[in-house]
Amino acid sequence: MNAIDELAESFSRLPGIGKKSATRLAHHLLKVNQNFLEQFAKELITLHDRIHFCSICGSYTEADPCPICSNPLRERELLCVVEQPQDVETIECSKEYKGLFHVLGGVIAPLDGVGPDQLSIGKLIERVHKEGITEVIIATNPTIEGDTTALYLQRLLSQTGVTVSRLASGLPVGGDLEYADKLTLARSFRGRTTF
Amino acid sequence: MNAIDELAESFSRLPGIGKKSATRLAHHLLKVNQNFLEQFAKELITLHDRIHFCSICGSYTEADPCPICSNPLRERELLCVVEQPQDVETIECSKEYKGLFHVLGGVIAPLDGVGPDQLSIGKLIERVHKEGITEVIIATNPTIEGDTTALYLQRLLSQTGVTVSRLASGLPVGGDLEYADKLTLARSFRGRTTF
Repeated sequence: MNAIDELAESFSRLPGIGKKSATRLAHHLLKVNQNFLEQFAKELITLHDRIHFCSICGSYTEADPCPICSNPLRERELLCVVEQPQDVETIECSKEYKGLFHVLGGVIAPLDGVGPDQLSIGKLIERVHKEGITEVIIATNPTIEGDTTALYLQRLLSQTGVTVSRLASGLPVGGDLEYADKLTLARSFRGRTTF
Repeated sequence: MNAIDELAESFSRLPGIGKKSATRLAHHLLKVNQNFLEQFAKELITLHDRIHFCSICGSYTEADPCPICSNPLRERELLCVVEQPQDVETIECSKEYKGLFHVLGGVIAPLDGVGPDQLSIGKLIERVHKEGITEVIIATNPTIEGDTTALYLQRLLSQTGVTVSRLASGLPVGGDLEYADKLTLARSFRGRTTF
Protein backbone atom coordinates (compact mmCIF):
# COMPACT_ATOMS: atom_id res chain seq x y z
CA MET A 1 0.00 0.00 0.00
CA ASN A 2 1.48 3.36 -0.93
CA ALA A 3 1.18 6.65 0.96
CA ILE A 4 -1.94 7.72 -0.95
CA ASP A 5 -3.73 4.45 -0.23
CA GLU A 6 -2.74 4.57 3.43
CA LEU A 7 -4.10 8.10 3.81
CA ALA A 8 -7.27 7.18 1.90
CA GLU A 9 -7.70 4.18 4.23
CA SER A 10 -7.56 6.51 7.26
CA PHE A 11 -10.09 8.87 5.68
CA SER A 12 -12.43 5.99 4.87
CA ARG A 13 -12.52 5.06 8.56
CA LEU A 14 -14.28 8.37 9.29
CA PRO A 15 -18.10 8.39 9.34
CA GLY A 16 -19.79 9.36 6.07
CA ILE A 17 -16.63 9.06 3.96
CA GLY A 18 -16.72 6.14 1.54
CA LYS A 19 -13.84 4.55 -0.34
CA LYS A 20 -14.19 6.82 -3.40
CA SER A 21 -14.40 10.06 -1.43
CA ALA A 22 -11.44 8.94 0.69
CA THR A 23 -9.29 8.41 -2.40
CA ARG A 24 -10.41 11.76 -3.77
CA LEU A 25 -9.45 13.50 -0.53
CA ALA A 26 -6.03 11.86 -0.45
CA HIS A 27 -5.37 12.96 -4.03
CA HIS A 28 -6.56 16.46 -3.22
CA LEU A 29 -4.08 16.68 -0.33
CA LEU A 30 -1.23 15.89 -2.73
CA LYS A 31 -1.92 19.28 -4.29
CA VAL A 32 -2.19 21.41 -1.13
CA ASN A 33 0.85 22.94 0.50
CA GLN A 34 2.82 21.27 3.26
CA ASN A 35 1.92 23.98 5.82
CA PHE A 36 -1.73 23.01 5.71
CA LEU A 37 -0.87 19.32 6.11
CA GLU A 38 1.33 20.04 9.13
CA GLN A 39 -1.26 22.25 10.77
CA PHE A 40 -3.97 19.63 10.13
CA ALA A 41 -1.70 16.92 11.56
CA LYS A 42 -0.96 19.00 14.67
CA GLU A 43 -4.67 19.57 15.26
CA LEU A 44 -5.27 15.82 15.11
CA ILE A 45 -2.45 14.96 17.50
CA THR A 46 -3.27 17.62 20.10
CA LEU A 47 -7.06 17.21 19.98
CA HIS A 48 -7.37 14.87 22.97
CA ASP A 49 -4.91 16.88 25.05
CA ARG A 50 -6.72 20.15 24.48
CA ILE A 51 -10.35 19.08 24.84
CA HIS A 52 -11.84 17.98 28.17
CA PHE A 53 -15.32 17.53 29.64
CA CYS A 54 -16.66 20.56 31.52
CA SER A 55 -16.92 19.51 35.21
CA ILE A 56 -20.27 21.30 35.51
CA CYS A 57 -22.29 20.64 32.33
CA GLY A 58 -20.34 17.74 30.78
CA SER A 59 -19.84 19.48 27.43
CA TYR A 60 -16.50 19.57 25.57
CA THR A 61 -14.27 22.47 26.50
CA GLU A 62 -10.65 23.66 26.61
CA ALA A 63 -11.12 25.63 29.86
CA ASP A 64 -12.92 24.19 32.90
CA PRO A 65 -15.65 25.30 33.57
CA CYS A 66 -16.63 25.83 29.94
CA PRO A 67 -17.27 29.31 28.47
CA ILE A 68 -21.04 28.83 28.81
CA CYS A 69 -21.04 27.69 32.46
CA SER A 70 -18.67 30.51 33.42
CA ASN A 71 -20.49 33.24 31.49
CA PRO A 72 -22.35 35.51 33.98
CA LEU A 73 -24.56 36.91 31.20
CA ARG A 74 -26.37 33.59 30.53
CA GLU A 75 -29.87 33.11 31.95
CA ARG A 76 -28.79 30.96 34.88
CA GLU A 77 -32.27 29.77 35.90
CA LEU A 78 -32.80 27.97 32.54
CA LEU A 79 -31.26 24.53 32.00
CA CYS A 80 -31.34 22.73 28.65
CA VAL A 81 -30.73 18.97 28.80
CA VAL A 82 -29.10 17.42 25.72
CA GLU A 83 -27.82 13.96 24.79
CA GLN A 84 -24.34 14.72 23.46
CA PRO A 85 -21.75 17.52 23.72
CA GLN A 86 -22.17 18.35 20.02
CA ASP A 87 -25.87 19.12 20.65
CA VAL A 88 -24.72 22.10 22.74
CA GLU A 89 -22.89 23.48 19.72
CA THR A 90 -25.89 22.89 17.44
CA ILE A 91 -28.23 24.75 19.81
CA GLU A 92 -25.70 27.57 20.31
CA CYS A 93 -25.59 28.05 16.52
CA SER A 94 -29.34 28.77 16.45
CA LYS A 95 -28.74 31.74 18.82
CA GLU A 96 -32.25 31.17 20.25
CA TYR A 97 -31.31 29.95 23.72
CA LYS A 98 -29.36 31.92 26.31
CA GLY A 99 -29.55 29.62 29.35
CA LEU A 100 -27.27 26.88 30.69
CA PHE A 101 -26.78 23.31 29.45
CA HIS A 102 -26.55 19.84 30.88
CA VAL A 103 -25.14 16.95 28.84
CA LEU A 104 -26.55 13.51 29.69
CA GLY A 105 -23.87 11.62 27.78
CA GLY A 106 -26.41 9.46 25.94
CA VAL A 107 -30.02 8.27 26.22
CA ILE A 108 -31.76 5.44 28.05
CA ALA A 109 -31.47 2.48 25.66
CA PRO A 110 -32.07 -0.87 27.37
CA LEU A 111 -31.19 -2.82 24.20
CA ASP A 112 -27.73 -1.20 24.18
CA GLY A 113 -27.39 -1.76 27.92
CA VAL A 114 -27.66 1.93 28.76
CA GLY A 115 -29.77 2.56 31.86
CA PRO A 116 -30.35 5.82 33.80
CA ASP A 117 -27.30 5.06 35.99
CA GLN A 118 -24.93 5.36 33.04
CA LEU A 119 -26.17 8.89 32.32
CA SER A 120 -25.42 12.11 34.13
CA ILE A 121 -28.89 12.21 35.76
CA GLY A 122 -27.92 12.36 39.45
CA LYS A 123 -25.77 15.37 38.63
CA LEU A 124 -28.73 16.96 36.81
CA ILE A 125 -31.02 16.65 39.86
CA GLU A 126 -28.24 18.03 42.06
CA ARG A 127 -27.78 21.05 39.75
CA VAL A 128 -31.52 21.72 39.64
CA HIS A 129 -31.55 21.86 43.47
CA LYS A 130 -28.32 23.79 44.01
CA GLU A 131 -28.31 26.27 41.14
CA GLY A 132 -31.85 27.63 41.59
CA ILE A 133 -33.06 26.39 38.20
CA THR A 134 -36.70 27.32 37.44
CA GLU A 135 -37.16 25.59 34.08
CA VAL A 136 -35.60 22.47 32.60
CA ILE A 137 -35.93 22.21 28.80
CA ILE A 138 -35.46 18.63 27.63
CA ALA A 139 -33.82 18.66 24.20
CA THR A 140 -33.16 14.95 23.63
CA ASN A 141 -33.73 13.84 20.03
CA PRO A 142 -37.32 13.06 18.93
CA THR A 143 -36.51 9.34 18.68
CA ILE A 144 -37.90 6.43 20.70
CA GLU A 145 -34.90 6.50 23.07
CA GLY A 146 -34.90 10.29 23.25
CA ASP A 147 -38.60 10.38 24.06
CA THR A 148 -38.25 7.63 26.67
CA THR A 149 -35.42 9.53 28.32
CA ALA A 150 -37.44 12.76 28.22
CA LEU A 151 -40.41 11.03 29.89
CA TYR A 152 -38.15 9.52 32.54
CA LEU A 153 -36.58 12.89 33.30
CA GLN A 154 -39.95 14.63 33.34
CA ARG A 155 -41.25 12.22 36.00
CA LEU A 156 -38.09 12.56 38.07
CA LEU A 157 -38.01 16.35 37.82
CA SER A 158 -41.73 16.87 38.51
CA GLN A 159 -40.94 16.06 42.18
CA THR A 160 -38.51 18.97 42.39
CA GLY A 161 -41.08 21.65 41.56
CA VAL A 162 -39.32 23.10 38.47
CA THR A 163 -41.13 23.63 35.19
CA VAL A 164 -40.19 20.85 32.76
CA SER A 165 -40.60 21.43 29.01
CA ARG A 166 -39.72 19.57 25.82
CA LEU A 167 -38.61 21.01 22.46
CA ALA A 168 -41.51 21.20 19.98
CA SER A 169 -41.63 18.41 17.42
CA GLY A 170 -43.33 18.81 14.03
CA LEU A 171 -42.81 19.83 10.43
CA PRO A 172 -39.36 21.25 9.67
CA VAL A 173 -39.41 24.87 8.45
CA GLY A 174 -39.33 24.91 4.65
CA GLY A 175 -40.58 21.32 4.63
CA ASP A 176 -43.46 19.99 2.59
CA LEU A 177 -46.54 18.19 3.94
CA GLU A 178 -46.28 15.73 1.08
CA TYR A 179 -42.86 14.53 2.22
CA ALA A 180 -43.54 14.47 5.97
CA ASP A 181 -43.66 11.01 7.52
CA LYS A 182 -46.80 9.89 9.35
CA LEU A 183 -45.32 10.18 12.85
CA THR A 184 -44.04 13.71 12.30
CA LEU A 185 -47.37 14.76 10.82
CA ALA A 186 -49.26 13.20 13.75
CA ARG A 187 -47.04 15.06 16.18
CA SER A 188 -47.44 18.35 14.40
CA PHE A 189 -51.23 17.94 14.81
CA ARG A 190 -50.97 17.12 18.49
CA GLY A 191 -48.60 20.03 19.08
CA ARG A 192 -50.51 22.56 16.95
CA THR A 193 -50.45 26.16 18.16
CA THR A 194 -53.20 28.79 17.98
CA PHE A 195 -52.57 32.14 16.26
CA MET B 1 -11.73 29.11 18.42
CA ASN B 2 -11.23 25.89 20.39
CA ALA B 3 -9.46 22.71 19.22
CA ILE B 4 -12.68 21.15 17.87
CA ASP B 5 -13.52 24.23 15.79
CA GLU B 6 -9.96 24.46 14.47
CA LEU B 7 -9.99 20.83 13.37
CA ALA B 8 -13.47 21.25 11.85
CA GLU B 9 -12.19 24.31 9.97
CA SER B 10 -9.37 22.21 8.45
CA PHE B 11 -11.81 19.48 7.46
CA SER B 12 -14.15 22.01 5.85
CA ARG B 13 -11.31 23.14 3.58
CA LEU B 14 -11.34 19.70 1.94
CA PRO B 15 -13.48 19.21 -1.19
CA GLY B 16 -16.98 17.86 -0.59
CA ILE B 17 -16.92 18.39 3.16
CA GLY B 18 -19.30 21.12 4.33
CA LYS B 19 -19.37 22.92 7.67
CA LYS B 20 -21.78 20.44 9.29
CA SER B 21 -19.90 17.33 8.18
CA ALA B 22 -16.63 18.93 9.28
CA THR B 23 -17.98 19.51 12.79
CA ARG B 24 -19.33 15.98 12.87
CA LEU B 25 -15.93 14.56 11.86
CA ALA B 26 -14.12 16.60 14.51
CA HIS B 27 -16.52 15.36 17.18
CA HIS B 28 -16.10 11.81 15.95
CA LEU B 29 -12.32 12.07 16.30
CA LEU B 30 -12.74 13.04 19.96
CA LYS B 31 -13.99 9.51 20.53
CA VAL B 32 -11.32 7.56 18.60
CA ASN B 33 -8.06 6.51 20.21
CA GLN B 34 -4.90 8.59 20.11
CA ASN B 35 -3.00 5.95 18.06
CA PHE B 36 -5.30 6.46 15.10
CA LEU B 37 -4.93 10.25 15.32
CA GLU B 38 -1.13 9.99 15.42
CA GLN B 39 -1.02 7.59 12.50
CA PHE B 40 -3.40 9.82 10.51
CA ALA B 41 -1.27 12.88 11.34
CA LYS B 42 1.92 11.10 10.27
CA GLU B 43 0.35 10.11 6.95
CA LEU B 44 -0.57 13.74 6.31
CA ILE B 45 2.89 15.10 7.17
CA THR B 46 4.84 12.52 5.16
CA LEU B 47 2.53 12.45 2.12
CA HIS B 48 4.50 14.92 -0.02
CA ASP B 49 7.84 13.34 0.89
CA ARG B 50 6.72 9.84 -0.02
CA ILE B 51 4.83 10.48 -3.26
CA HIS B 52 6.53 11.58 -6.49
CA PHE B 53 5.67 11.66 -10.18
CA CYS B 54 6.79 8.61 -12.16
CA SER B 55 9.47 9.79 -14.61
CA ILE B 56 7.99 7.61 -17.37
CA CYS B 57 4.18 7.85 -17.17
CA GLY B 58 3.72 10.88 -14.89
CA SER B 59 1.51 9.03 -12.41
CA TYR B 60 1.93 9.27 -8.61
CA THR B 61 4.32 6.71 -7.16
CA GLU B 62 6.60 5.99 -4.22
CA ALA B 63 9.21 4.18 -6.36
CA ASP B 64 10.45 5.53 -9.70
CA PRO B 65 9.57 4.12 -12.24
CA CYS B 66 6.11 3.30 -10.85
CA PRO B 67 4.97 -0.32 -10.25
CA ILE B 68 3.01 -0.31 -13.53
CA CYS B 69 5.82 1.02 -15.75
CA SER B 70 8.29 -1.43 -14.22
CA ASN B 71 5.99 -4.47 -14.38
CA PRO B 72 7.18 -6.81 -17.19
CA LEU B 73 3.83 -8.62 -17.23
CA ARG B 74 1.86 -5.59 -18.50
CA GLU B 75 0.92 -5.47 -22.21
CA ARG B 76 3.66 -3.05 -23.20
CA GLU B 77 2.33 -2.25 -26.69
CA LEU B 78 -0.90 -0.72 -25.28
CA LEU B 79 -0.83 2.85 -23.96
CA CYS B 80 -3.80 4.45 -22.18
CA VAL B 81 -3.75 8.26 -22.04
CA VAL B 82 -5.47 9.85 -19.02
CA GLU B 83 -5.88 13.38 -17.67
CA GLN B 84 -4.86 12.98 -14.03
CA PRO B 85 -2.82 10.53 -11.92
CA GLN B 86 -5.96 9.46 -10.02
CA ASP B 87 -7.49 8.28 -13.32
CA VAL B 88 -4.79 5.58 -13.42
CA GLU B 89 -6.02 4.28 -10.08
CA THR B 90 -9.67 4.38 -11.20
CA ILE B 91 -8.90 2.38 -14.35
CA GLU B 92 -6.73 -0.07 -12.41
CA CYS B 93 -9.66 -0.74 -10.07
CA SER B 94 -11.80 -1.92 -13.01
CA LYS B 95 -9.21 -4.67 -13.69
CA GLU B 96 -10.15 -4.47 -17.39
CA TYR B 97 -6.94 -2.96 -18.75
CA LYS B 98 -3.49 -4.54 -18.58
CA GLY B 99 -1.40 -2.11 -20.67
CA LEU B 100 0.68 0.95 -19.79
CA PHE B 101 -0.44 4.49 -18.91
CA HIS B 102 0.46 8.03 -19.82
CA VAL B 103 -0.71 10.96 -17.68
CA LEU B 104 -1.25 14.24 -19.56
CA GLY B 105 -1.46 16.33 -16.42
CA GLY B 106 -4.66 18.06 -17.54
CA VAL B 107 -6.66 18.83 -20.69
CA ILE B 108 -6.50 21.51 -23.36
CA ALA B 109 -8.61 24.34 -21.92
CA PRO B 110 -7.93 27.68 -23.65
CA LEU B 111 -10.24 29.54 -21.22
CA ASP B 112 -8.08 28.38 -18.31
CA GLY B 113 -4.92 29.19 -20.27
CA VAL B 114 -3.96 25.52 -20.72
CA GLY B 115 -2.59 24.80 -24.20
CA PRO B 116 -0.99 21.61 -25.57
CA ASP B 117 2.45 22.87 -24.44
CA GLN B 118 1.48 22.69 -20.78
CA LEU B 119 0.58 19.01 -21.12
CA SER B 120 2.86 16.00 -21.36
CA ILE B 121 2.18 15.56 -25.11
CA GLY B 122 5.75 15.72 -26.50
CA LYS B 123 6.66 12.96 -24.06
CA LEU B 124 3.67 10.92 -25.27
CA ILE B 125 4.77 11.10 -28.92
CA GLU B 126 8.31 10.19 -27.87
CA ARG B 127 7.06 7.15 -25.94
CA VAL B 128 4.88 6.00 -28.85
CA HIS B 129 7.97 6.04 -31.10
CA LYS B 130 10.50 4.57 -28.68
CA GLU B 131 8.46 1.95 -26.81
CA GLY B 132 6.92 0.20 -29.82
CA ILE B 133 3.34 1.10 -28.91
CA THR B 134 0.73 -0.29 -31.33
CA GLU B 135 -2.45 1.19 -29.86
CA VAL B 136 -3.10 4.39 -27.94
CA ILE B 137 -6.39 4.40 -26.00
CA ILE B 138 -7.48 7.96 -25.19
CA ALA B 139 -9.29 7.95 -21.85
CA THR B 140 -9.80 11.66 -21.24
CA ASN B 141 -13.16 12.53 -19.66
CA PRO B 142 -16.22 12.79 -21.96
CA THR B 143 -16.37 16.58 -21.42
CA ILE B 144 -15.88 19.38 -23.94
CA GLU B 145 -12.23 19.81 -22.90
CA GLY B 146 -11.64 16.06 -22.73
CA ASP B 147 -13.13 15.55 -26.20
CA THR B 148 -11.13 18.46 -27.65
CA THR B 149 -7.93 17.02 -26.22
CA ALA B 150 -8.81 13.56 -27.54
CA LEU B 151 -9.38 14.99 -31.05
CA TYR B 152 -6.09 16.91 -30.89
CA LEU B 153 -4.19 13.80 -29.83
CA GLN B 154 -5.92 11.66 -32.45
CA ARG B 155 -4.79 14.02 -35.23
CA LEU B 156 -1.25 14.18 -33.87
CA LEU B 157 -0.96 10.43 -33.39
CA SER B 158 -2.50 9.49 -36.77
CA GLN B 159 0.80 10.56 -38.33
CA THR B 160 2.74 7.99 -36.29
CA GLY B 161 0.85 4.99 -37.69
CA VAL B 162 -0.43 3.61 -34.36
CA THR B 163 -4.09 2.69 -33.85
CA VAL B 164 -5.81 5.43 -31.86
CA SER B 165 -9.01 4.61 -29.95
CA ARG B 166 -11.29 6.40 -27.51
CA LEU B 167 -13.21 4.94 -24.54
CA ALA B 168 -16.87 4.28 -25.39
CA SER B 169 -19.32 6.88 -24.17
CA GLY B 170 -23.00 6.13 -23.52
CA LEU B 171 -25.48 5.01 -20.91
CA PRO B 172 -23.93 3.99 -17.60
CA VAL B 173 -24.52 0.33 -16.67
CA GLY B 174 -27.52 0.14 -14.32
CA GLY B 175 -28.67 3.53 -15.54
CA ASP B 176 -32.14 4.42 -16.74
CA LEU B 177 -33.05 5.90 -20.15
CA GLU B 178 -35.47 8.22 -18.39
CA TYR B 179 -32.69 9.88 -16.42
CA ALA B 180 -30.09 10.02 -19.18
CA ASP B 181 -29.30 13.52 -20.45
CA LYS B 182 -29.79 14.34 -24.14
CA LEU B 183 -26.09 14.39 -25.01
CA THR B 184 -25.39 11.01 -23.41
CA LEU B 185 -28.42 9.50 -25.14
CA ALA B 186 -27.34 10.95 -28.50
CA ARG B 187 -23.87 9.50 -28.04
CA SER B 188 -25.18 6.09 -27.10
CA PHE B 189 -27.12 6.08 -30.39
CA ARG B 190 -24.09 7.10 -32.41
CA GLY B 191 -21.91 4.53 -30.64
CA ARG B 192 -24.49 1.69 -30.78
CA THR B 193 -23.08 -1.81 -31.21
CA THR B 194 -24.56 -4.75 -33.12
CA PHE B 195 -25.22 -8.08 -31.40
